[in-house]
Amino acid sequence: MAHIEVDPNLPGIRSLMAFRPETAEPMSALAEILLRSDDGLSRGDRELIATYVSYLNDCFYCHHSHGEIAVCYLNGNRSLVDDVRNDYTTADISDKLKALLNIAGKVQKSGKAVTEHDVAKARESGATDRDIHDTVLIAAAFCMFNRYVDGLAAKTPTDLSSYPLRAKQVAENGYGSHIYLQKQPA
Amino acid sequence: MAHIEVDPNLPGIRSLMAFRPETAEPMSALAEILLRSDDGLSRGDRELIATYVSYLNDCFYCHHSHGEIAVCYLNGNRSLVDDVRNDYTTADISDKLKALLNIAGKVQKSGKAVTEHDVAKARESGATDRDIHDTVLIAAAFCMFNRYVDGLAAKTPTDLSSYPLRAKQVAENGYGSHIYLQKQPA
Repeated sequence: MAHIEVDPNLPGIRSLMAFRPETAEPMSALAEILLRSDDGLSRGDRELIATYVSYLNDCFYCHHSHGEIAVCYLNGNRSLVDDVRNDYTTADISDKLKALLNIAGKVQKSGKAVTEHDVAKARESGATDRDIHDTVLIAAAFCMFNRYVDGLAAKTPTDLSSYPLRAKQVAENGYGSHIYLQKQPA
Repeated sequence: MAHIEVDPNLPGIRSLMAFRPETAEPMSALAEILLRSDDGLSRGDRELIATYVSYLNDCFYCHHSHGEIAVCYLNGNRSLVDDVRNDYTTADISDKLKALLNIAGKVQKSGKAVTEHDVAKARESGATDRDIHDTVLIAAAFCMFNRYVDGLAAKTPTDLSSYPLRAKQVAENGYGSHIYLQKQPA
């Protein structure tokens, strides 16, 4: 049960966003801008970074939600998403994305953990300033989203079969806060 | 020097927000809603929570910026802000704020660290669902802001005399993203 009284029919962050629509709006807008763009990093890359950081933060709801959204963008390749969670260094992804996941993993620990060497390595593999910026901010934002969900003990569906439908809706329609406020199963 | 090329005349998060105004807007809106309200928690309480979490995250720029904004709301009582940083349990603040700072400190570590006992203790001292929600989200949001600033190594003025003027401007005019984009010293 959540630490505060929220709609029991809404799972995860959606219940919290319905509790406080004023803060839901900018949070949804931030997710939309950071995750639903193919400028530099693809939507798939962005969701993989979000999934990886949520996995490191042990946020079951977020890493499964965003893992499934990544699966949508990666044409159903769920094993690639699992590989990134388990050991991205050996996953079938670009060197650029590996270097950016390294930075994201550092940000999950602390902003100060990111070194000039980490950034230089990302640049060598083709990352731009914008890619590095977006990686750091996606990782930082999921350190917020994950703590929001688990810090208020939002209801987390443990049945993984409930995540793909919701993921498809987000992949198609985005993170607009109206999406979070719809009363439908996860 | 920052990890990406930003305006060298802008300090801290302001340089990053000018680099990427699209994300600056929802981040500023979130700060404005969470921090500039006296509904339940006062503006001073909210800035103390932000300062404390930023201090735990060792984000020099953020804990000094928000510490100074707290000072503005607390009628210049800088020693109270220092007391909260150093050991809030003995500071001259309400039991309710102490219980909420305990929750904020847990969120800084991990959302999962917040226990039912922590929440019950906050309720016993008068905290509402809304106070608990806002505390968790302020703490979570500063886990984002702090990582954003330090993960991109944004320029951090070490001269503490530069912080009060800026704090006064934010306390008076708010966190609108236009504020961050003004080119003026910290």
